[in-house]
Amino acid sequence: MRFSKLTGERLKETPAGVSAKSHSLLLRAGYIKQVANGIYSLLPPAQRVSLKIQAIIREEMNKIDGQEVLMPVVMPREMWDKSGRYSSIGQEMIRFKDRNDHDMLIGMTHEEAAVHLCQNVIKSYDQLPIMIYQIQTKVRDEARPRAGLLRVKEFTMKDAYSFHTSKEDLDSYYERAYDAYNRIYKRIGMKNFVSISSDSGMMGGDEAHEFQLLVDAGEDNLVICSHCDYKANMEIAISQPDKVNFEDKKLEEVYTGEAKSIEEVSSMLNISKQQTIKAVCYAVAGEKEKVIIAFIRGDKEVNEAKLKKLLGVEDIAITDISNSRLIAGNIGCVSLENENIIKVFDKSLTGLKGMICGANKECYHLNGVNMDRDVKPNEYVDIAKVNENELCPICGNKLTIKKGIEVGNIFKLGTKYTKPMEMTISMPDGSQINPIMGCYGIGVGRCLAGIVEESADDKGIVWPMSIAPWLLYLCPLRNDNPEIEKVADELYENLSKEFEVLYDDRKLSAGAKLTDSELMGIPVRVVISPRSLAENNAEITIRETGEKLMVKLDNLCKTLKELTQIK
Amino acid sequence: MRFSKLTGERLKETPAGVSAKSHSLLLRAGYIKQVANGIYSLLPPAQRVSLKIQAIIREEMNKIDGQEVLMPVVMPREMWDKSGRYSSIGQEMIRFKDRNDHDMLIGMTHEEAAVHLCQNVIKSYDQLPIMIYQIQTKVRDEARPRAGLLRVKEFTMKDAYSFHTSKEDLDSYYERAYDAYNRIYKRIGMKNFVSISSDSGMMGGDEAHEFQLLVDAGEDNLVICSHCDYKANMEIAISQPDKVNFEDKKLEEVYTGEAKSIEEVSSMLNISKQQTIKAVCYAVAGEKEKVIIAFIRGDKEVNEAKLKKLLGVEDIAITDISNSRLIAGNIGCVSLENENIIKVFDKSLTGLKGMICGANKECYHLNGVNMDRDVKPNEYVDIAKVNENELCPICGNKLTIKKGIEVGNIFKLGTKYTKPMEMTISMPDGSQINPIMGCYGIGVGRCLAGIVEESADDKGIVWPMSIAPWLLYLCPLRNDNPEIEKVADELYENLSKEFEVLYDDRKLSAGAKLTDSELMGIPVRVVISPRSLAENNAEITIRETGEKLMVKLDNLCKTLKELTQIK
Repeated sequence: MRFSKLTGERLKETPAGVSAKSHSLLLRAGYIKQVANGIYSLLPPAQRVSLKIQAIIREEMNKIDGQEVLMPVVMPREMWDKSGRYSSIGQEMIRFKDRNDHDMLIGMTHEEAAVHLCQNVIKSYDQLPIMIYQIQTKVRDEARPRAGLLRVKEFTMKDAYSFHTSKEDLDSYYERAYDAYNRIYKRIGMKNFVSISSDSGMMGGDEAHEFQLLVDAGEDNLVICSHCDYKANMEIAISQPDKVNFEDKKLEEVYTGEAKSIEEVSSMLNISKQQTIKAVCYAVAGEKEKVIIAFIRGDKEVNEAKLKKLLGVEDIAITDISNSRLIAGNIGCVSLENENIIKVFDKSLTGLKGMICGANKECYHLNGVNMDRDVKPNEYVDIAKVNENELCPICGNKLTIKKGIEVGNIFKLGTKYTKPMEMTISMPDGSQINPIMGCYGIGVGRCLAGIVEESADDKGIVWPMSIAPWLLYLCPLRNDNPEIEKVADELYENLSKEFEVLYDDRKLSAGAKLTDSELMGIPVRVVISPRSLAENNAEITIRETGEKLMVKLDNLCKTLKELTQIK
Repeated sequence: MRFSKLTGERLKETPAGVSAKSHSLLLRAGYIKQVANGIYSLLPPAQRVSLKIQAIIREEMNKIDGQEVLMPVVMPREMWDKSGRYSSIGQEMIRFKDRNDHDMLIGMTHEEAAVHLCQNVIKSYDQLPIMIYQIQTKVRDEARPRAGLLRVKEFTMKDAYSFHTSKEDLDSYYERAYDAYNRIYKRIGMKNFVSISSDSGMMGGDEAHEFQLLVDAGEDNLVICSHCDYKANMEIAISQPDKVNFEDKKLEEVYTGEAKSIEEVSSMLNISKQQTIKAVCYAVAGEKEKVIIAFIRGDKEVNEAKLKKLLGVEDIAITDISNSRLIAGNIGCVSLENENIIKVFDKSLTGLKGMICGANKECYHLNGVNMDRDVKPNEYVDIAKVNENELCPICGNKLTIKKGIEVGNIFKLGTKYTKPMEMTISMPDGSQINPIMGCYGIGVGRCLAGIVEESADDKGIVWPMSIAPWLLYLCPLRNDNPEIEKVADELYENLSKEFEVLYDDRKLSAGAKLTDSELMGIPVRVVISPRSLAENNAEITIRETGEKLMVKLDNLCKTLKELTQIK
């Protein structure tokens, strides 16, 4: 490819409003262009990377007996009514009416379509297991697209669906898929990725893993044990708070005046935050009367994902209690009874004595709260966010918290879709069962952007060889000199027979060209200049390490072949 | 691939309501499954064919310096407001509102997106020409989906867009694209395809060609000269009616009573239909008052596509004139004046004398109409359908009419999109111009189905080698015998190293397996059986020709390599 004809432009500065590194670099290096909020066109270099990632995914899916199919982007409502998701999924799913006033939708995932495809086509136990997959456009009306390709409304996804006669068979296939995913991330050049057990959320079913790339730009918080194998998304990570023990005393009101927050109360009374009981009030969407009050030790935060799961609700939000009889800043768990209040007690409060909580009375708190004597909760549940340095629930060593980008996920779905859609297969004994499913997703664009996040340096993108848009960046300096241009043209022709070459034939300054080569992240740069040619040399620079070597032109091709071998 | 695990089923009978050959065979052989009217899932064999077609298209696009990109399926209204197509395209385009009540649409073509992608990115004349292309899902809310993959609502399309500084540069690139298209159809195994000059329709612009595969299932009527190069879609084919000459006489009314149609009048008066003048009344959508009356020689039909183009209207329809003062069956062109009537005269009437037309009076016609004496039209225009055996407008030889499937099209767009979207590039003299565009489309699924239409025989599909889902069909007979199964398993393993093999490991009768192999259209079948193995032989059958040969197992791989070479 001649650079002079390459569709795209390079920018010196990060465009306004752009913060994520990958977003900035992909824009600046001419890889993407925004069409609307969360919707991008991929320019030729990005599409080249995307196709290479897709090819690796395809190979690995075929290795685990995947059969590639293509399901439609647009589907009729009926199919999704059967699974119940036409109504259970919110605004994220795009719905429209066709010319005959028929309800249609744009697929954000394809469990229903996969069951439809296999239904009546896979009829007997001996046809199983099978796995079908597709690489296809998905559209999700994301509420908050962000960070370029990291969270978008439209993206290319590989989604796979497996069908099994038994849980054991799914378990063993799930292992194979898990291994394939690890191979994919490794082959596309991710370095620091982990798989963690995850909340399977709206997909339903039991076991699930998400694959997370550990980079600062990630929006997921991951809890990772420094010692054992324990890893979990903050949303479901088990909190094991350090034990505290305060002296038991009798219950008494203390005047706390304007002190409302945990900070203010603990500071006024000169006690640690651990000795206080925090109350956080939530409203549930659609239930105006009810208030949920989460009580938790003052040094800890409520994990809303856990709370939602516990309550079995779609959404909760911290509520304004100014219109209720509750007194903000003085809410306490002693003698608080009201039919519209649901109380939830975090495990961090288990059996504590000598605690401080609100007195449900303006300007007063209670001192000496003994949970088992004064509150007597029915149960203590885990609704706490894990803090850095909290102890691992498995081995007791310290936990760390890292940021991650979710680059894939795998789920055991069970019969969540085959049962309501009435897909059955006949078993050896003549009985009919609903086959058991697994599903396996990976976002191509997010992998691409994640790799930029992980590997880029202060000069620009650094592509792994396996997915680089071109392996070589051929960069003649002073090619306004016809002699240099002639040598460079010949070199381009010859190297193109063996490699994918981006040939910088532009008549620009050396500085401009070298800067672009670094910004674009092409793994190996070959520079020729009047000076190098005088000695029959070319200068090779490895983008990742900055390593340079002078090579005689006669040995260039051989050296490049050694350098560009993908291990 | 082991057949026992292949996702899909084979049907003996054509499903009810299915008429097109390709539709029936693709369903029966387990290639496609309908999801909704005009929406299909591709099962693994069809997706394999589709990917092979895509790979060939990609190669040919890259050969003509195409740069692959990916534009979004979902786009914001604003982009399409600029070109005017948000309102000018009808229900075929799917529109919806996103969660923020923003007007969005699903792309049915990507001219706007292509201009958006290149705008401000291609700035200078020396960056041109460029061509960008994508292979992507398109959705069109077709009014009348039909014939399986031949006319669908959702399909995979390669669409390409080129940008030029001058009309001459576009002309020369257009030639290259034209040649690439011819290479694509040849390489994917189409035999009888033609390129014809076409009406560029809603794409706008000047010159255009459509590529048509000549098969009976086609829905386009094509006019093709038996002698010279003249080929045209019926919609724009030039009609050169045979000259007729009738004796001039004086105008007089004749009583025709209940005779209304051309058939009835010519039969009653015992004259040829050629001696009559037919009147066809049309209404224009949105113009209630106006009636368009097309006058044409009685033996000819009005070509509505030509009439629409002539009048510059989107849609016309034959109208019910019962509420007007016109007398159905007795409308004539002599002394017919009314401000709400637009009269159009076909060329077939030029200068004719001694004609019969309606007298605009119940039960009467006029005899002896002399066009130049009694009617004096301002002009005669070509609004006639070409009839079989009409004469070629170029060479005067006979024309034939054939059915075709449009499998691709290329257009010279000019500045139809760059001008309203204000894309400019700077020229050497410092001036700014709107670049001139071409666009180039090809539907992957329609090519796939078209090839089935063209090549299938009464036993099933016949895939060309270049796009066959598998090259070999390995078919052991009596593999319920463990010895046969062992040999077949080994053969499968060995052949798989060199070829794509569909291995029929099912324990079915010879008849069932051989029938499926023919139905599915795999190019080369290798049968082993107890009898053939006794002589160390395998039997090879070529699907296309039915040719059979016995080959020693030792020579099998070598022979197959020779047989499967793609020329």
